[in-house]
Amino acid sequence: MRYLKLTLSYDGTNYNGFQRQKNAVGIQQIVEEALSHLLGENIRLVASGRTDTGVHAWGQVISFTTKSTVPIGHIPRAIKHLLPGDIVVWKAEEVPENFNARYSAVEKTYQYRIMVTDVQDPFKRNYAWEIKKQPDVEKMQKAANYLLGTHDFSAFRNKGSKPISPERTISKAQWEMAEKELVFTITGDGFLYRMVRNIVGALVKVGEGKITPDEFQKILLAKDRQQAGMAAPACGLYLMQVRY
Amino acid sequence: MRYLKLTLSYDGTNYNGFQRQKNAVGIQQIVEEALSHLLGENIRLVASGRTDTGVHAWGQVISFTTKSTVPIGHIPRAIKHLLPGDIVVWKAEEVPENFNARYSAVEKTYQYRIMVTDVQDPFKRNYAWEIKKQPDVEKMQKAANYLLGTHDFSAFRNKGSKPISPERTISKAQWEMAEKELVFTITGDGFLYRMVRNIVGALVKVGEGKITPDEFQKILLAKDRQQAGMAAPACGLYLMQVRY
Repeated sequence: MRYLKLTLSYDGTNYNGFQRQKNAVGIQQIVEEALSHLLGENIRLVASGRTDTGVHAWGQVISFTTKSTVPIGHIPRAIKHLLPGDIVVWKAEEVPENFNARYSAVEKTYQYRIMVTDVQDPFKRNYAWEIKKQPDVEKMQKAANYLLGTHDFSAFRNKGSKPISPERTISKAQWEMAEKELVFTITGDGFLYRMVRNIVGALVKVGEGKITPDEFQKILLAKDRQQAGMAAPACGLYLMQVRY
Repeated sequence: MRYLKLTLSYDGTNYNGFQRQKNAVGIQQIVEEALSHLLGENIRLVASGRTDTGVHAWGQVISFTTKSTVPIGHIPRAIKHLLPGDIVVWKAEEVPENFNARYSAVEKTYQYRIMVTDVQDPFKRNYAWEIKKQPDVEKMQKAANYLLGTHDFSAFRNKGSKPISPERTISKAQWEMAEKELVFTITGDGFLYRMVRNIVGALVKVGEGKITPDEFQKILLAKDRQQAGMAAPACGLYLMQVRY
């Protein structure tokens, strides 16, 4: 038996999220079918985590076992012809038996892309959150700094997730301008359900002057999901990297 | 009667080109239906020109007449709710009676976007031509310089177009790197059917070393479509601006 790890990027626009499901097409299903076809056996994969409908990935990681002897270096090219153009496997590695894409992950990085524009951009509609007025990035950064370190992130956690511990450690929370977009990069040892989108939604409220950075910190410390307000839309979110 | 000019951007991915047609949805039909709904009368528009299936626009221009008294400044916002997210009207102007989006155009600018990447990019699949090896941009620019001025462009014209004169004057033909992409900007007093994509296809052959810049010039001067080779794919082409 061989233990394989694949890294993939995908445009989440046309899928009902990553997870396999009964009445809609998830990315997992497409990838499992392509792998099963390529390797000649039924493949069931484990991913580093789910992504919601419309969320994108540059560096999603999956793992699975196979009896196939297909050379590891051939997999990205061979599977390309079995996958639609919006899902790309760009790295394949052999890993030790105890590797699990979900449980072996030690750190994840997400990016959230915001486009500040008065005029709607037909090319960004699925790839960034369009807002009309330039927010105060300095205030947003000041608020984001409160996320650093270990906290109970219940304030930014949606229901529907399993009752695991709400404590997470954030090591990076950085706003910057990149190619006309406002990009938020956040790295942590893990993220709760909807946590990044809920955080970005509240940070943009800070940038719009609706709440102060100190009020943002109070929301975090109150651990009450009701106070943080709306999540940012899915289309701006990208799973960038999973570290093992 | 009022004479109106609208400027629009669109993502051409999901449409069978601009032109209204019987068995497929063109962008023209979507825009005419939205305008008819908004203005309360049957609107038939004239565009600066067609774009093919999968070709995009930042600055397509249309004109039409209306009896409606809707204030001109309200149109972009009002029509937004009647159009899908991949078609955006971003400018509306009143024009003199003799204005015609097609016949009044004096100059058009197109861009063609190429992404040089070894790894397929799921986010660019509909928005740039992906090629694997870095082409020789200096040679491509040398060849492109032969396009400047007035020439018979039959070498780069597909059949299927009306038997109009094949002479066109090109005032700009410029390669540059922009945001990891190789971008070709071409400005002229008009373009023949498939002309830009045929030119880019041949210029990339120059960049790959398959033909020399001088051979490119010979192809242009031979006025023979057979010599120029394959057109570049539609997805990389953008109608940027129409000048009147």
